[in-house]
Amino acid sequence: MAIITPFITSDGIVEIYVDNLFKGIVVIDRLNPPYGIALPGGFMDVGESIEQCLKREMLEEISLDVEIKGLLGIYSDPNRDPRFHTVSAVYICRAEQLPIAGDDAKTCKVVSLEKLLNEQFVFDHALIIKDYLAYRQLRSDKDFPSGEEKD
Amino acid sequence: MAIITPFITSDGIVEIYVDNLFKGIVVIDRLNPPYGIALPGGFMDVGESIEQCLKREMLEEISLDVEIKGLLGIYSDPNRDPRFHTVSAVYICRAEQLPIAGDDAKTCKVVSLEKLLNEQFVFDHALIIKDYLAYRQLRSDKDFPSGEEKD
Repeated sequence: MAIITPFITSDGIVEIYVDNLFKGIVVIDRLNPPYGIALPGGFMDVGESIEQCLKREMLEEISLDVEIKGLLGIYSDPNRDPRFHTVSAVYICRAEQLPIAGDDAKTCKVVSLEKLLNEQFVFDHALIIKDYLAYRQLRSDKDFPSGEEKD
Repeated sequence: MAIITPFITSDGIVEIYVDNLFKGIVVIDRLNPPYGIALPGGFMDVGESIEQCLKREMLEEISLDVEIKGLLGIYSDPNRDPRFHTVSAVYICRAEQLPIAGDDAKTCKVVSLEKLLNEQFVFDHALIIKDYLAYRQLRSDKDFPSGEEKD
């Protein structure tokens, strides 16, 4: 019996800090269909862990060596991707530099939390962003690294 | 370009409560290779969410309609499964009945937390169990549902 499961991807919510001040998270304008604004991320390769996949994708797509802070969740709705069924493991990450667009990104930018929901996200990335904002609200102050700006 | 990613599975740490008292978690003796003791779980189908996959597998394999409590983690080491590269989303679940072995399980049983690490687990399930036990230690008392026995 042939085993067929959905494709696995990993996406990053990359929190950018400059001089230890939180500036926002990275979004990309996709080079390939479906076109639009998205979190950076991509397909997992056989032979790498999901964390290696995430770090590789962040390096390839936004030129950042990110530190993984934690898993936000798994997004697996069969209709979340218009092409085929994908499952994404979404991690919150931190980086200390500004992103530069690479593979699969026409451009990229850092967006403050207040302006994030003004973006027109593809896939289910608006849902992921809402979950991320809710998660930040829930975290108590002591969980924030020192020097982080509250919103 | 053909996309190939690892296979996705979901495994359950199913906490069994009888008369609201915590009895332990469910392990199975596998019917198919690799033989040995494992957490119940199985491959995700295209067209279902990861949570639907987990609930379906728990029904098929240990005959329980489980309530999903939360995500423990994602296990994705390329060597975790001797057959091929699999990624497992592991969820903590709760059920109020005793399990009955179904598909892919020769037998199943409920094992108390004290005795869990005496089992000879296949895959990386001993690591998952260690993470689960550490997670239980970390949770503060208020997070335990009322009536749950502490260990």
